[in-house]
Amino acid sequence: MITGKNYIGNRLSGNGTKTYRTFNPLLNMENENEFVEASTEEINEAVFLASDAYIAYNQKSGKEKAAFLNTIADEILATGDALIQMYCSESGLPEGRAKGERGRTVGQLRAFAALVEEGSWVEATIDTAIPDRAPIPKPDMRKMMVPLGPVVVFGASNFPLAFSTAGGDTAAALAAGCPVIVKSHPMHAGTGEMVASAIIKAAEKTGMPNGVFSNLNSSGIEVGVQLVEHPQVKAVGFTGSIKGGRALFDLAARRDEPIPVFAEMGSINPVVMLPEALKNRSGELAKTYAGSITLAAGQFCTNPGLLLGIEGQGLTNFIKALSEEIVKIEPSCMLHPNIIGAYEKNKQTAIDQSGLVVAADYGTEVAVNYARQAVVTVEGSTFLENTRLHQEVFGPFSMVVKCKDAAELQQIISNLEGQLTGTIISDNDEISAYPMVIAALQNRVGRIIFNGVPTGVEVCPSMQHGGPYPASTDSRFTAVGTQSIKRWVRPFSYQSWPDDLLPNELKNSNPLGILRSVNNEQTKAAI
Amino acid sequence: MITGKNYIGNRLSGNGTKTYRTFNPLLNMENENEFVEASTEEINEAVFLASDAYIAYNQKSGKEKAAFLNTIADEILATGDALIQMYCSESGLPEGRAKGERGRTVGQLRAFAALVEEGSWVEATIDTAIPDRAPIPKPDMRKMMVPLGPVVVFGASNFPLAFSTAGGDTAAALAAGCPVIVKSHPMHAGTGEMVASAIIKAAEKTGMPNGVFSNLNSSGIEVGVQLVEHPQVKAVGFTGSIKGGRALFDLAARRDEPIPVFAEMGSINPVVMLPEALKNRSGELAKTYAGSITLAAGQFCTNPGLLLGIEGQGLTNFIKALSEEIVKIEPSCMLHPNIIGAYEKNKQTAIDQSGLVVAADYGTEVAVNYARQAVVTVEGSTFLENTRLHQEVFGPFSMVVKCKDAAELQQIISNLEGQLTGTIISDNDEISAYPMVIAALQNRVGRIIFNGVPTGVEVCPSMQHGGPYPASTDSRFTAVGTQSIKRWVRPFSYQSWPDDLLPNELKNSNPLGILRSVNNEQTKAAI
Repeated sequence: MITGKNYIGNRLSGNGTKTYRTFNPLLNMENENEFVEASTEEINEAVFLASDAYIAYNQKSGKEKAAFLNTIADEILATGDALIQMYCSESGLPEGRAKGERGRTVGQLRAFAALVEEGSWVEATIDTAIPDRAPIPKPDMRKMMVPLGPVVVFGASNFPLAFSTAGGDTAAALAAGCPVIVKSHPMHAGTGEMVASAIIKAAEKTGMPNGVFSNLNSSGIEVGVQLVEHPQVKAVGFTGSIKGGRALFDLAARRDEPIPVFAEMGSINPVVMLPEALKNRSGELAKTYAGSITLAAGQFCTNPGLLLGIEGQGLTNFIKALSEEIVKIEPSCMLHPNIIGAYEKNKQTAIDQSGLVVAADYGTEVAVNYARQAVVTVEGSTFLENTRLHQEVFGPFSMVVKCKDAAELQQIISNLEGQLTGTIISDNDEISAYPMVIAALQNRVGRIIFNGVPTGVEVCPSMQHGGPYPASTDSRFTAVGTQSIKRWVRPFSYQSWPDDLLPNELKNSNPLGILRSVNNEQTKAAI
Repeated sequence: MITGKNYIGNRLSGNGTKTYRTFNPLLNMENENEFVEASTEEINEAVFLASDAYIAYNQKSGKEKAAFLNTIADEILATGDALIQMYCSESGLPEGRAKGERGRTVGQLRAFAALVEEGSWVEATIDTAIPDRAPIPKPDMRKMMVPLGPVVVFGASNFPLAFSTAGGDTAAALAAGCPVIVKSHPMHAGTGEMVASAIIKAAEKTGMPNGVFSNLNSSGIEVGVQLVEHPQVKAVGFTGSIKGGRALFDLAARRDEPIPVFAEMGSINPVVMLPEALKNRSGELAKTYAGSITLAAGQFCTNPGLLLGIEGQGLTNFIKALSEEIVKIEPSCMLHPNIIGAYEKNKQTAIDQSGLVVAADYGTEVAVNYARQAVVTVEGSTFLENTRLHQEVFGPFSMVVKCKDAAELQQIISNLEGQLTGTIISDNDEISAYPMVIAALQNRVGRIIFNGVPTGVEVCPSMQHGGPYPASTDSRFTAVGTQSIKRWVRPFSYQSWPDDLLPNELKNSNPLGILRSVNNEQTKAAI
């Protein structure tokens, strides 16, 4: 049951005057439900409630927060097929993807629940007093992570579940102890409302303070701007375009009190194909990469948009094979007419600038809103000169760069902007001959992959999803995996604080039994 | 032997046209040596060398970096009395302080050496592959911290050694694997050159790449601006005023590629004196705080500039006692005529705005460049209305705010800007009656102290030195203690990477014997 309203804390509210509908790209028509954009008053109320809830939510134990997160997961699953249908109608993505993404979303929530229930994530660090130290006594010092305050999360167009309303940013922020205000993505406002409703139910069931979560509808940039500029908002999470992420970063940096913006933005995910590998298995690589390039209509931030090889028969064979493989793959529906519009425009620009088109279009007529995948090639020297060719073409597109030698390959990598991932395709230990190419690639990316594809982001503690700008606005953090909780916390020290007033994490008796660093030793023991 | 030149990597260079001298505030005259400001070419060369050195320095083992850091410490000690004399002549600070700060500087370098020699600081995290996982295989993922790239460090006026040339920021960045370019503080360029010379000697002795360290003289803002704007600079460390830190933050945020600026800036370090404590020991507290307020002429970022109490006999007694104690303390020399000039001006503004002066001036005539300590009082309601009273007066100054009740006290705390520290003075468990005051204070600070003084910053893992803006530009990090290394690193993931090509920290055999998280378990065991 979709109301089209905002959740201002636990209360549904639709006082605004601006309305909009979502779009079904498969049917090429608007969906039925009408959504009311949040008004300035509603925005302010949501932030006020969040700021108020922050103190109370901060007092909740890890166990209580875990119950909240697990109940959100339960409530999302309880929405059943209705959510899956809504997801598909608002994204054009297939049911299998919807279910997979729901599974990932629920998995993320439960992973964060487990993290905060166990409790060691706060990095409790204790240095006990040395009262007789000369020349001055050493005080008792204890430190742990504490939440930053209300966090604004922007829903992502390409992950209506896993990086939107109850996605990775929200799960991490709630786990950290930060109330969350979601700026719902206009393309999937219905999915957003259903998930928001699940979160609110969970908050009420588990006794969380009103305001710990709000969901605000918006069709343009105004709601987001007001949220990021609000003095009581303390951090921002965003997944989307470089233009959008940078605009939010700039807004946040210009505030009287600048706040951190963690934006995960564009990436062309360079893939270096070394000569032996190309010689030995150009056909197999072409098949694998045709699949990776077109996965989910190329709408992944880890899509391999740049394939780098050194000129030779291997590369020629690979380009030929890729041009054959890419057209064998069924075209698929993109998320929204705006997205396919941008894709066609950016693809054409890249084709115009790169000159030679290898496989510009899927040959036959395709349905409306379905993407025509494309691969282009360009000389290394042209790519080096024309930085417009370095820009992401969001969709099922990739560019093969023909480098004249290893030196040019290294130079091209060194001149790339920051990337989420870099991949090396190598046979028979040929990689050992390219240490400077590897070093250059490592310097430009957040994750490096050996003989694989960049698509597929494992959710685990050792995943780094984020890289040098503009892959993300702060490469010191990850957007995926439980370590992403660190974006929303800060260290806090207690000096000579009475034991009974310390949080449980830092008490002498270690009542939570967490792993702590005590006088430089990792231990679960009491003091 | 002072040359007055810049260190551009290992080479002394003084091609610029602008020269300046440092000032001896005790003698109220310029010092003898002339310093040549770095030219644009020298700045660019230093950054180029640093960028080049980054790759080579990155290959150095923790043990090699530790040898470098320990040798810097040795070389600093080897400068002997000459350094101490230079320090005193450029700061007006006493010899005891100079030696203490040298000890702290050397201690910091050795602490970072120990950290990187041991090696576990890189947070090695490993999730091994599960090839038969359904529906898709789980890849082998391994993550560790890697250095950001060349770091620019701005020397601090108030810590010529511990937060300048080879101070905390430099030690942390070099330990992390980042080459460092120091923008020398103009007030102590001679101290800076001597320490830079020690660093260069250590770099040469331990075989570090040329460019791992440079030291640039500057008398104005131009050198700093050019450094922060240089595309090859990847992060900035700063300790100083809000105005200066914010200017650098804004410059860095406006770059095509924004970079992190960790600026540790102003703080008035609120101290909450609860009624029982004031009733029981107003005299003792007055004595303790008179000492803390005037320590090092009030030139510490943790100086207690704001004392908050609830109106009553206890507070009245305390104010009377403080006004008596503060004038008993000998006035001391400030760092520079500019600093005492700003102090006198800001103090007068505060006196004008707060109305009642309790102990405006040290009674007798004081020597030139010596600070006249002062304490003023103001009503809570006035303080709430006039936010100019919230601004730091850098020097031996403090403001006592007379709150009418606990609610006003809490409101005042909630309206403060971010602070490095907050202190609670409490007797007989009276603190238990003020949970919301404590919560409000925790929300505004990075470190909270019970029955102590904020001055004195212990260098240990559990120290948080940094707080919500404007105490620092990024409260998610600390400027003091070995954890400050995290400002200069980013997580980096290897996916399915061949074991022999992995860094030692992530190899199966764990050749370094470091503590790692392997499949969610903390262990030093091999895989």
